[in-house]
Amino acid sequence: MPIELVNIRQKLAQFSDHWNPRIVGELNGQHVKLVKLKGEFVWHQHEAEDEMFLVIDGSFRMELRDRTIDLSEGDFIIIPKGTEHRPVAPSEVSVMLFEPATTVNTGNATGELTRETLEYL
Amino acid sequence: MPIELVNIRQKLAQFSDHWNPRIVGELNGQHVKLVKLKGEFVWHQHEAEDEMFLVIDGSFRMELRDRTIDLSEGDFIIIPKGTEHRPVAPSEVSVMLFEPATTVNTGNATGELTRETLEYL
Repeated sequence: MPIELVNIRQKLAQFSDHWNPRIVGELNGQHVKLVKLKGEFVWHQHEAEDEMFLVIDGSFRMELRDRTIDLSEGDFIIIPKGTEHRPVAPSEVSVMLFEPATTVNTGNATGELTRETLEYL
Repeated sequence: MPIELVNIRQKLAQFSDHWNPRIVGELNGQHVKLVKLKGEFVWHQHEAEDEMFLVIDGSFRMELRDRTIDLSEGDFIIIPKGTEHRPVAPSEVSVMLFEPATTVNTGNATGELTRETLEYL
């Protein structure tokens, strides 16, 4: 792949739907994704993948089974594999994800919100 | 490791030296690092690791052998393994790095600027 400058806000301006991650970078078997969240996601876990959420714009909360973590712009968390979590965004939030290329957005909770194939932006 | 909220600016406020990356996250064998750049680095390449540079604050240029890429806040690039590069920052810039835990900052150009052991923040 050619070396390409990527501007996060420019990429975010190219889509408006929620819970549908776009791939914006790939390195070492990992994907860099951008996603817009709004509303409640499903409880799920990833069996084999740790997942990083970095807030680009807005805020949301990550619900864990034993507590909730509030994230705002410039915050990130890493959810270890095997950890149940549910992102909830009362207002729209833009998030960057770092995770293995094998990661499916809904993990073990396949359903309506599952995105099997992601678009490259 | 416990799940921990990390604020990037808070972490950046904890150090002021240049070319000395701090590890602020770890997932899937990859490290998330923060580093402040100022001045010219050495030409180098990483034999086995792709490397992502995301600008948090400020701007710098990434020199490649055939061209130069200017990066500002919200921009990122991925330097594929085996690609010679040299970051140059006329003014201080804060950068997030995403790369395998095995990555040494100076790659194949071991010398004065090499940081063998990185601090966890």
